[in-house]
Amino acid sequence: MIETAPGWLTRDELELARARMPILYVEAVPVRVDDTGAVTSVGLLLRIAPDGTVNRMLVSGRVLLQERVRDALLRHLEKDLGPVALPRIPASLQPFTVAEYFPTQGVTPYHDPRQHAVALAYIVPVAGDCRPRQDALDLVWFSPQEAASPLVQQEMSGGQGVVLKQALAHVGCLT
Amino acid sequence: MIETAPGWLTRDELELARARMPILYVEAVPVRVDDTGAVTSVGLLLRIAPDGTVNRMLVSGRVLLQERVRDALLRHLEKDLGPVALPRIPASLQPFTVAEYFPTQGVTPYHDPRQHAVALAYIVPVAGDCRPRQDALDLVWFSPQEAASPLVQQEMSGGQGVVLKQALAHVGCLT
Amino acid sequence: MIETAPGWLTRDELELARARMPILYVEAVPVRVDDTGAVTSVGLLLRIAPDGTVNRMLVSGRVLLQERVRDALLRHLEKDLGPVALPRIPASLQPFTVAEYFPTQGVTPYHDPRQHAVALAYIVPVAGDCRPRQDALDLVWFSPQEAASPLVQQEMSGGQGVVLKQALAHVGCLT
Amino acid sequence: MIETAPGWLTRDELELARARMPILYVEAVPVRVDDTGAVTSVGLLLRIAPDGTVNRMLVSGRVLLQERVRDALLRHLEKDLGPVALPRIPASLQPFTVAEYFPTQGVTPYHDPRQHAVALAYIVPVAGDCRPRQDALDLVWFSPQEAASPLVQQEMSGGQGVVLKQALAHVGCLT
Repeated sequence: MIETAPGWLTRDELELARARMPILYVEAVPVRVDDTGAVTSVGLLLRIAPDGTVNRMLVSGRVLLQERVRDALLRHLEKDLGPVALPRIPASLQPFTVAEYFPTQGVTPYHDPRQHAVALAYIVPVAGDCRPRQDALDLVWFSPQEAASPLVQQEMSGGQGVVLKQALAHVGCLT
Repeated sequence: MIETAPGWLTRDELELARARMPILYVEAVPVRVDDTGAVTSVGLLLRIAPDGTVNRMLVSGRVLLQERVRDALLRHLEKDLGPVALPRIPASLQPFTVAEYFPTQGVTPYHDPRQHAVALAYIVPVAGDCRPRQDALDLVWFSPQEAASPLVQQEMSGGQGVVLKQALAHVGCLT
Repeated sequence: MIETAPGWLTRDELELARARMPILYVEAVPVRVDDTGAVTSVGLLLRIAPDGTVNRMLVSGRVLLQERVRDALLRHLEKDLGPVALPRIPASLQPFTVAEYFPTQGVTPYHDPRQHAVALAYIVPVAGDCRPRQDALDLVWFSPQEAASPLVQQEMSGGQGVVLKQALAHVGCLT
Repeated sequence: MIETAPGWLTRDELELARARMPILYVEAVPVRVDDTGAVTSVGLLLRIAPDGTVNRMLVSGRVLLQERVRDALLRHLEKDLGPVALPRIPASLQPFTVAEYFPTQGVTPYHDPRQHAVALAYIVPVAGDCRPRQDALDLVWFSPQEAASPLVQQEMSGGQGVVLKQALAHVGCLT
């Protein structure tokens, strides 16, 4: 299948772009909140690698050409959490952090061997049912305390665990 | 009627406190948002003074002793917008601004002749029906453009119009 | 001269990239502050077009491949304000806004006919002497009030005037 | 000695106020930064209790009546770091967090047995020499990694260690 929609790149084009400039990403930390807005749990995507390795992930993906950051957030949330998750994208685009994933390790706490990606990170309350649509993915809810625990942290890679801890700190749930 | 709940002050006690230290307030800018979180309209409270003067206001009020900022926000939103407004208090307590109302004019853009009040200001999407419960108040929705217009701005007092413009700027709606 | 450093693109390569994905930018609003951190003036770059048109601009530029956002900010500030401006890049990368410049007008308040650019915007106090090094540019300081005035706003293009007003709102100087 | 300046309270008056409403505080995390604004070290105040207990603290104190938040920040920084610390108070009053210290433990991660205090927390780069003026206090610089370590965290009390970790998360230094 050939991607023809504007904004979508062939694999070759993406490789070419990655070799030339930082790629803009959005990252979302899905949370459940109570009536006062306080975070009660944090959702992490789960992928089991063929070798049985557990990998937990944030919702994350590229911003396409001519796509608003808000629309990219909504698209990736719907892709990963399903059509009835009812995500509440923030009214302000001010991210809680900017995570710079470098192909070289050690430049920042974030690392992506494929590319230099710069991710705008948001906390997104979700009110509905989450039904991950992609076969390899499941969504698991953790208490803020569990999410910050070494057990969960070591199941996250590339520094997404750091972004998660930054999110918990931002909502006052990192103790 | 005598207030006996902890945190509530008699009128005399409040006067005494006001003469001694800054009073902590919360302020909320109620907004309607679309599916992508973009602000589509802004809600302002309306009070008609006995002389016919129109005064438009943000949701605003004191934080009580032993009350969390989140609970104060929810309490004032319910008081001013009614019980089914379904306000979505932000997950993070980081305010978009801190508005310092001084009894002396000109120290800051904010002014309150009664007291030195320091308000933590938040943008709060509301999803339900707003039915102001207090007799003198009504809630009117404006487009972001109308909300920033001189007409609406001059109907706000004490610098709340400035807080409103800061809110609009924060959500990318001040053009 | 041929650019050979990694991260630098030939004109053709840049055109190619622009046709494929959003380009990551940083934007800085240079300010003078007093001892308490309050903004006393705002610096705008001045360019006189051949037809005599006055154009005022923020410090702005691309983030290169393998370049940190902080380093991009410093590089563009030094390029536009000279080597002894002593800019104080913020300790946190949380921008006050994210400005999305679209090639199509009207999608957002920001517009760039050349490309889809997404700019992380920061307020940067500068403590030293500003000596713009590029021939066509000068730096002029305005009071916050002047910077928000229609006169200055109409000399800015592509929505940078909006970013400037957002910056003024963020520091409590938009009245 | 009797405090007569407006804003200053006698001990009795302060006790009275504390029994009636939340007290507004500012908190500052002093940091050293490099040319790009990246945090290189974090300063903590040290107090040795008569029983030899080590207590590390942030710069912290009350906002007085008719005092701006900026002026309170500067006053407490000068009190604790001396007159030539050259603190760079942020241009924006948007705090990185709001820490709610409750007299009852467990309501929030923050606890102050004396009072209900609500602290606006800021990261403040200091460029000069820090010479704590109060006898019982010293200032010690830590790397971000040390500051987040259990060793330092257990020497902080009342939840200030949490505020410190939130600050480190905000500047991208919590790994």
